[in-house]
Amino acid sequence: MKNIKLTIEYDGTNYHGWQIQPNATTVQGRIIDAIEELTGERVKLIGASRTDEGVHALGQVANFLTDSNIEENKFCLAMNVHLPSDIVVVKSEEVSSEFNARYDSCGKKYRYIIHNRYTRSALWDNRSYHVKHKLNVDLMNDAAKFLIGTHDFSSFKASGGKTKTSVRTIHDVCVIRRDDMVIIEIRGDGFLYNMVRIIAGTLVEIGTRGIEPVRMQNILNAKDRREAGHTAPPNGLYLVQVYY
Amino acid sequence: MKNIKLTIEYDGTNYHGWQIQPNATTVQGRIIDAIEELTGERVKLIGASRTDEGVHALGQVANFLTDSNIEENKFCLAMNVHLPSDIVVVKSEEVSSEFNARYDSCGKKYRYIIHNRYTRSALWDNRSYHVKHKLNVDLMNDAAKFLIGTHDFSSFKASGGKTKTSVRTIHDVCVIRRDDMVIIEIRGDGFLYNMVRIIAGTLVEIGTRGIEPVRMQNILNAKDRREAGHTAPPNGLYLVQVYY
Repeated sequence: MKNIKLTIEYDGTNYHGWQIQPNATTVQGRIIDAIEELTGERVKLIGASRTDEGVHALGQVANFLTDSNIEENKFCLAMNVHLPSDIVVVKSEEVSSEFNARYDSCGKKYRYIIHNRYTRSALWDNRSYHVKHKLNVDLMNDAAKFLIGTHDFSSFKASGGKTKTSVRTIHDVCVIRRDDMVIIEIRGDGFLYNMVRIIAGTLVEIGTRGIEPVRMQNILNAKDRREAGHTAPPNGLYLVQVYY
Repeated sequence: MKNIKLTIEYDGTNYHGWQIQPNATTVQGRIIDAIEELTGERVKLIGASRTDEGVHALGQVANFLTDSNIEENKFCLAMNVHLPSDIVVVKSEEVSSEFNARYDSCGKKYRYIIHNRYTRSALWDNRSYHVKHKLNVDLMNDAAKFLIGTHDFSSFKASGGKTKTSVRTIHDVCVIRRDDMVIIEIRGDGFLYNMVRIIAGTLVEIGTRGIEPVRMQNILNAKDRREAGHTAPPNGLYLVQVYY
């Protein structure tokens, strides 16, 4: 029995998130179906991150056990034949039988894309957060730097998360502008429920209202969700990479 | 009577090109409908470029005459209410009564986006040309530079074009790589039918087969369409800007 690790890219627009559920089309469900069409096996597919409805991925990771004779690197193209155009397996490889995509992850990188122009976009509508008011990217970047390090991120946690501790480590974060796009990139050992979207919403408020960057430190210290900004919409969020 | 100039962005995927035609959904047709819903007038809308089916635009320009009392800069938001999500009027302004979006243009900039990775993209399928084999961008860029200047571009003209002369001036062209994307940008005083797509196809052949860049000079000199490469697909092409 082989343990196959997949690296997966998807446009989350047309899916009810990653996690398989009855009576709804999900990314995990479509991939399990593709594996079944290919191998005849109904596998258990373990994903690194349960992305929400509308969230995209450039580097989601998942693994499954199979008795199939297909070569490890051939799964990728063979599976893509059975997948819709908005889900692609970018890479497939055999890994040790102990590898678990979810529990072995030691970190993740997310990107949050804001389309910052007065009018909406014809090309990025489902793939970015449209913010009309001009963002001050320097303020946002300075504020974001307060997040780096090991902190209790209770202020950036949606209710409904089931984790034991709210302490996480952010290794790096930056905010840059590229024409009409403002891009937040954040890398850490783990993220609480909606944490990246609440950070993005808070940074948008700092960037539109000209709030002092040190406000981010005060929000962190408060350990109170009500101190942070709104939860930015899912369509701007991309899971970029999972680290092992 | 006012002459209104529009700057328009669209995703061409779901349209039979720019030009209005019976029994087909076109970008021009949808915009004329939007103006009619807004003002009650059935206007003549003059577009700078008749983009083909599947081609996108970031800065198409069009103009129309109207008796409407709507302020020049308000047309943009008012029209967007009547337009689908894949067409957006980015800017609207009143111009002199003589302004003609098509005949007054003195140049255009196009972008051609190639997705260069072994597996297809989940996010860029309709918006780029998927080329599996690794492209040598240095060769492509060197070859492209031979196009700069005033030349007879007969080798890069599809049959069916109705222009009197095949002489055009390319002001600038460059080919760059950004991760898995290879981007061609080209600016000139005018372009023959399918010219940018034939240039893109020729550059892809040079970049995949390791052909000497000077080959581009030989193709130009031949003035023979059969000497150039294939016509790259429309979905990688973007009309970026029209100059006046």
